[in-house]
Amino acid sequence: MSEFAVRAEKAAKAEKLDAGDELAGVRGQFVLDEVVYLDGNSLGALPSAVPGRVEDVVRRQWGELRIRSWDESGWWTAPERIGDRIAPLVGAAAGQIVVGDSTSVNVFKALVAAVRMAGEGRDEILVDATTFPTDGYIAESAARMTGRTLRPVTPAQVPDALSGRTAAVLLNHVDYRTGRLHDLPALTAAVHAAGAVSVWDLCHSAGALPVGLDEYGVDLAVGCTYKYLNGGPGSPAYLYVRGDLQDRFDSPLPGWNSHVEPFGMRSDFTPADGALRGRVGTPDILSMLALEAALEVWDGVSIEAVRAKSLALTDFFLECVAAYAPDGRVESLTPVAHGERGSQVALRCADAGDVMKRLIERGVVGDFRHPDVLRFGFTPLYVGFADVERAARVLGEVLR
Amino acid sequence: MSEFAVRAEKAAKAEKLDAGDELAGVRGQFVLDEVVYLDGNSLGALPSAVPGRVEDVVRRQWGELRIRSWDESGWWTAPERIGDRIAPLVGAAAGQIVVGDSTSVNVFKALVAAVRMAGEGRDEILVDATTFPTDGYIAESAARMTGRTLRPVTPAQVPDALSGRTAAVLLNHVDYRTGRLHDLPALTAAVHAAGAVSVWDLCHSAGALPVGLDEYGVDLAVGCTYKYLNGGPGSPAYLYVRGDLQDRFDSPLPGWNSHVEPFGMRSDFTPADGALRGRVGTPDILSMLALEAALEVWDGVSIEAVRAKSLALTDFFLECVAAYAPDGRVESLTPVAHGERGSQVALRCADAGDVMKRLIERGVVGDFRHPDVLRFGFTPLYVGFADVERAARVLGEVLR
Repeated sequence: MSEFAVRAEKAAKAEKLDAGDELAGVRGQFVLDEVVYLDGNSLGALPSAVPGRVEDVVRRQWGELRIRSWDESGWWTAPERIGDRIAPLVGAAAGQIVVGDSTSVNVFKALVAAVRMAGEGRDEILVDATTFPTDGYIAESAARMTGRTLRPVTPAQVPDALSGRTAAVLLNHVDYRTGRLHDLPALTAAVHAAGAVSVWDLCHSAGALPVGLDEYGVDLAVGCTYKYLNGGPGSPAYLYVRGDLQDRFDSPLPGWNSHVEPFGMRSDFTPADGALRGRVGTPDILSMLALEAALEVWDGVSIEAVRAKSLALTDFFLECVAAYAPDGRVESLTPVAHGERGSQVALRCADAGDVMKRLIERGVVGDFRHPDVLRFGFTPLYVGFADVERAARVLGEVLR
Repeated sequence: MSEFAVRAEKAAKAEKLDAGDELAGVRGQFVLDEVVYLDGNSLGALPSAVPGRVEDVVRRQWGELRIRSWDESGWWTAPERIGDRIAPLVGAAAGQIVVGDSTSVNVFKALVAAVRMAGEGRDEILVDATTFPTDGYIAESAARMTGRTLRPVTPAQVPDALSGRTAAVLLNHVDYRTGRLHDLPALTAAVHAAGAVSVWDLCHSAGALPVGLDEYGVDLAVGCTYKYLNGGPGSPAYLYVRGDLQDRFDSPLPGWNSHVEPFGMRSDFTPADGALRGRVGTPDILSMLALEAALEVWDGVSIEAVRAKSLALTDFFLECVAAYAPDGRVESLTPVAHGERGSQVALRCADAGDVMKRLIERGVVGDFRHPDVLRFGFTPLYVGFADVERAARVLGEVLR
């Protein structure tokens, strides 16, 4: 087929896929431009509802009501209210998620609490050796501070590495580099069979695919909100503590917001009931309420529809890259099998840093991950199939 | 003197004091209304520069530039840049403060790092027994996780309690309840004489009076930014690590932002040089840049002038309360001596909760601290002497 014919065929296919896209209407709820934005797995695009909400929070809630807003504008209860808004997206019933702090800080809370739940006899923490670095650094600190040994293993090695010594296992649902989706149900079951506690990092899966926290009996989980949840730069992370474990959640960061009676100003600490004990200090209201507005785009959207579109987008991208990219210039690190794929495509490319720079200059935004990875994230809420065709076509041109 | 004459005299004095107030012009940089706002020590009023800045951050930096803003809009370097903006207000040279996380989380970082600096042989942590609760809870956790014993003592007892066993001492510069200013130079010197490490909580002093971190050789300090620094509800806190201690600052929360090469994505942790190693996860940009805009009100304002006005305000308030309040209805818990007074006045009052409710209904906003304290904070940047006279007068009316 000629280059022209290939292009015509892909464009026609994109048009057909876009016409059948049941989520196409959601795109109108985001502020977008002519750029093909495939970096929503780093920073989600701006939902249109956010600027007006933030303005109200700043001008009226802070500027006029001031301190009264802690009650009257619902500031005080925002961490658990917004947690309940995230809950259905990750398959959790209400009352198990609180929002606040960064992902790193929540990994620390969750992993230390997990070790404490596991009990004194278990002296080893398993951590994904291919994890996003912060999880590994924090796990090292959690191990040091609880007197445990940290053992990095690949997710595939976890079942064999588990033993009666294992206290807790920290895993990523989707690998930040390759986009590989790990088998959360099977790995959680294996962790439980060994009597250990599972901690899942959902940064690269929440909002892109069904997680099923309750269904698969996950113990503890954390995630950020600025990727597929579009909460804005550095928006607060969240912590999930399964309902029946909450009484045993013993936080290493017991702040005044974790107390059963925060305004009692007691010198002795008694933790709040429920997920609230995962809170720490004063919640960061501006960022938190921007996130709350951002989550409104999920009204009426099913995560199953998002997943179906996500797979169609990445399938089509891989197909277009195969058609447009010169042979041997890039190699996909992302699994072909749907059951092993998140919502991104990672392409290995010798001169990836330079290639990504040129892609961005030409209006296709992904990101570069050291040392040789082109990473493209597909947010089904606002990326369409014509975007995908264009991105792959421009990539092909840049690579030639 | 008749009631009328008393009122005329206080009003005349207020007018004279306002006329001589060199900071009077700063009030115009805040969004204020007819309310007398004496709760700036809980949540500072909105600086006029903030709404426009936040709108730009949301609409242009996030909405249009998206991921590019991490470089182009200076997001990535915000924690240290804003730290350097706070530095002169607390008497610190540049390069020693980073902004991020809550006060509670920063207390944890500082106290654990302090214990590690002190070395293995020292097994005791002293903490202010009258502290704001979160510091005590976090200190308990830091002690538990480092295998030290926590010993609560009043600040006055600290010199006698210090010994060769003392690893670290966590103190508040100003007591949140009584408004008592503790003697930072003398207490820091005593801590050092015992070979221990000092950690100061500046929540109720920064922005209200000179702190002198560098001058007095404070080791580590933390503080919030939503009180006298007017950063907004739950705006990020900060951490000070004295320059010559930075190489020994061993954080219990080593996130990817603490790494010497954050985008190197290394699996082994090598801390950044300098105060940067006090960072943890992705900085919370919306709140952080709102704070940056809020700090502009300090341009051309000296903290010494702020302190002088603060003392004049609290002097005048105590004078007016003495003139207006029925005998025996309230008792000041705030020291009379200037050297022992922060920027608030705490009045003990049997029915304080009810009294504060009625004050607020009548346009005088302070807050109630369990069980019997009326707390009035005086932010010299926007509170004037006529406000003070009116607040005391309304209080007198409510108490009768």
